[in-house]
Amino acid sequence: MSAIDLNADLGEGFGVWRLGDDDALLGVVTSANVACGFHAGDPSTMRRVCAGAVAAGVAIGAQVSYRDLAGFGRRAMDVPSAELAAEILYQLAALDGIARSCGGRVSYVKPHGALYNRIVADREQAAAVASAVAAYDRSLPILTLPGSALFDLPGTPGQNGLNIVAECYADRAYTPQGTLVPRSSPDAVVRDPAEVTARAVRMAMDHEVVTVDGSVVMVEARSICVHGDTPGAVDLARSVRAALTDAGVHLTPFA
Amino acid sequence: MSAIDLNADLGEGFGVWRLGDDDALLGVVTSANVACGFHAGDPSTMRRVCAGAVAAGVAIGAQVSYRDLAGFGRRAMDVPSAELAAEILYQLAALDGIARSCGGRVSYVKPHGALYNRIVADREQAAAVASAVAAYDRSLPILTLPGSALFDLPGTPGQNGLNIVAECYADRAYTPQGTLVPRSSPDAVVRDPAEVTARAVRMAMDHEVVTVDGSVVMVEARSICVHGDTPGAVDLARSVRAALTDAGVHLTPFA
Amino acid sequence: MSAIDLNADLGEGFGVWRLGDDDALLGVVTSANVACGFHAGDPSTMRRVCAGAVAAGVAIGAQVSYRDLAGFGRRAMDVPSAELAAEILYQLAALDGIARSCGGRVSYVKPHGALYNRIVADREQAAAVASAVAAYDRSLPILTLPGSALFDLPGTPGQNGLNIVAECYADRAYTPQGTLVPRSSPDAVVRDPAEVTARAVRMAMDHEVVTVDGSVVMVEARSICVHGDTPGAVDLARSVRAALTDAGVHLTPFA
Amino acid sequence: MSAIDLNADLGEGFGVWRLGDDDALLGVVTSANVACGFHAGDPSTMRRVCAGAVAAGVAIGAQVSYRDLAGFGRRAMDVPSAELAAEILYQLAALDGIARSCGGRVSYVKPHGALYNRIVADREQAAAVASAVAAYDRSLPILTLPGSALFDLPGTPGQNGLNIVAECYADRAYTPQGTLVPRSSPDAVVRDPAEVTARAVRMAMDHEVVTVDGSVVMVEARSICVHGDTPGAVDLARSVRAALTDAGVHLTPFA
Repeated sequence: MSAIDLNADLGEGFGVWRLGDDDALLGVVTSANVACGFHAGDPSTMRRVCAGAVAAGVAIGAQVSYRDLAGFGRRAMDVPSAELAAEILYQLAALDGIARSCGGRVSYVKPHGALYNRIVADREQAAAVASAVAAYDRSLPILTLPGSALFDLPGTPGQNGLNIVAECYADRAYTPQGTLVPRSSPDAVVRDPAEVTARAVRMAMDHEVVTVDGSVVMVEARSICVHGDTPGAVDLARSVRAALTDAGVHLTPFA
Repeated sequence: MSAIDLNADLGEGFGVWRLGDDDALLGVVTSANVACGFHAGDPSTMRRVCAGAVAAGVAIGAQVSYRDLAGFGRRAMDVPSAELAAEILYQLAALDGIARSCGGRVSYVKPHGALYNRIVADREQAAAVASAVAAYDRSLPILTLPGSALFDLPGTPGQNGLNIVAECYADRAYTPQGTLVPRSSPDAVVRDPAEVTARAVRMAMDHEVVTVDGSVVMVEARSICVHGDTPGAVDLARSVRAALTDAGVHLTPFA
Repeated sequence: MSAIDLNADLGEGFGVWRLGDDDALLGVVTSANVACGFHAGDPSTMRRVCAGAVAAGVAIGAQVSYRDLAGFGRRAMDVPSAELAAEILYQLAALDGIARSCGGRVSYVKPHGALYNRIVADREQAAAVASAVAAYDRSLPILTLPGSALFDLPGTPGQNGLNIVAECYADRAYTPQGTLVPRSSPDAVVRDPAEVTARAVRMAMDHEVVTVDGSVVMVEARSICVHGDTPGAVDLARSVRAALTDAGVHLTPFA
Repeated sequence: MSAIDLNADLGEGFGVWRLGDDDALLGVVTSANVACGFHAGDPSTMRRVCAGAVAAGVAIGAQVSYRDLAGFGRRAMDVPSAELAAEILYQLAALDGIARSCGGRVSYVKPHGALYNRIVADREQAAAVASAVAAYDRSLPILTLPGSALFDLPGTPGQNGLNIVAECYADRAYTPQGTLVPRSSPDAVVRDPAEVTARAVRMAMDHEVVTVDGSVVMVEARSICVHGDTPGAVDLARSVRAALTDAGVHLTPFA
């Protein structure tokens, strides 16, 4: 029987501001990437989302970011390694403490936004993120794209190294090389809901996806990322979950 | 044999800015109140100070604050209880995670600045701070002034309650009621180094202090707070430590 | 012929986050209180709202606040006068420069949130706000509640003093003393849309309002504050505008 | 008779933190690059430095930066053009308003830190900075390195374009191509005070400098940048000023 994880970004409001429907998503996903205060996520929001995740049986991940509230962590930054590692460690520890106060714990790490994209290729920043996770708890997996520099760091993914886990996107187009079509391309996003759900099922059951040229490539991923920052997105996420369940795929946290 | 703790604020720089001489203070105190990022203390500074404290055998305390970098946490704020509790929990958890990555841990909590002063009288904010500490680890003591509202909260300092610990100031004048002379008074601070050290010894050995009217009052305190934000302050702190040691007082963390 | 101003808070998003419907409100109000970055309002949002206000012929006011993004400026702060004055001056100047780059200018000041409420009674903070406005441009009026401490500051509202202007709320209940019923009271808000619009018309035409005990008091105000942070609020604001226009009231910026 | 400007960074403290000796530098420089709150410089500091500059007859420049207090603006950021332009405009306007409240005004712009370095080569960010200055006041010169992308933007430095002005560094080594030796090189900084002052005089009088290979290159600059963030730096800046004066060079603001 196939099994897969569904992850989404939660807790991305700040203070009076809301973004996305956290409550709805807690009924859809198996893993919640909870913002830790550097791109979004004030302490009250973090606490509320962690309590909700614990109640819903959803795994809590630390959605760590550059320190950039004004840019929502979407602006790549040249942060020196030691600074970046300390900033990641701070966020991870803060969320884990809050999660534990709610009866849960952080069980994985997913970098956010520009940091997520940057460490796919930037070995130095990838190593800084990995060192922070290792310093806190080396049993915590890090969620990233297939092919990320995180997979090539010394010590990963070997016996004593960190556990690096790949995820995929049912609503994103793939190149024949198995990478995401960049968002700057008009074809970057798959918009037909039926196609998105079908792709999710094929990803979960057959570990493959049809690329932009019609070829089929392998997608080795233990989690599918869904979105929830628009009403339509939540509905689509629900459809993906329903289609996976209907296909007999077991939905369960990857971590 | 008498024993006492010496505590001081450390890690109160932010980014490029420095405040006080952390390295010098680590050679003087037995407990370091480490800033947690809300009034001071970026993650890199927190990590460096925690590593230094672990190496020096100095206990690490979470110096939690209002969220106010621009005002250094010295501006009292009307923060709703649930928000305040979440903000304290966030800071405490962040520092504890960093301390643990350095081989140590947070062993007590000391509120900073305007929050420190406010919770002496404000039961609601005192309860919020206490609830955050209880939610994280109810074995952690909270350092405060004698007579603070923290002592009167339901559940403290009884068997299952929080451990509230009083501290005293060798360089501050006391009223006959045993409270600090307010800083707005010209007599608030004791400036003669010899007098300060003598007061520290008497506080540690006899648990008493001479007040502004010449009377003597009891000072029940398990820690003496010293300062380190000027070169003279560090020298004075060294003198206090030396005088205590010469008097046969055992210097050891209170927590 | 009667004339009145309608003001509302605009530009209260921050970065990726939105709050309220700025575009809709620009079609309703005659004066826009634009957030200046301290409780809300990043520079891009400020620029977009200023451009929209200039295009719509809406007056631009500086909605200055405590420095408190996390609390949306709703947490009262004990800010020393000189610091507060400098913070207000900074926000006012930043918004005015942005407004001028859009072909407009700031034509009044309206403090936000906890600062708005505090300076009604706190003479020291009221004086700090007034001094900042005077330092920047003493021709700029400040919008506040009737009876505010701003009216009693030395130099206001006399010949060389600042121009302090009162506003009223059509959707808030009034006491027989002419003050707002506190929000902590269940009767604080008038919820019936027809009643709100009728009160607005009476305020604009007759300068009076029916209080909670059925008595009628004078309301000397040159502007009515409306809200736009919910869809229903925008509809209500539109109804208020329509009712005023139908009654022959001329809608025009007060400043 | 030769004339030159001496500029330095001022007002780079934040809240309780200080950096450099603003008062000393106001007695040395003819132009003060005043931090505007995004990498350093709270409103109170800005106001105090502006008042001092006006009193000392020192020109005030807006030292604009990425929004990065934690990194002191030294971390390059991929900020979209419209966002960057709005952020620069905000800082420039805020400082100008404060300067005007002190009886002065901003008379030039000097980007700070990572932004300063980035726009030497990054045409998109250079254009964003230039557009912000043009939107505020196109008569304001921008201080940058010789060869900066700012010189090549459409419209500059022609008749209706912006006024881009080059500066040089007496304490930095130059390549035979007339560019600065990167800080990563061990030879980047000239440490001998006598050599620094001699270079400053030659730069001001003969518009040339001896490069690392002994050759001489032209340095077309209207300002020499000096530093003040250490006691030694202030002394060196004083020596540079004295040597220039002794050589008959007229010290005057470039703007």
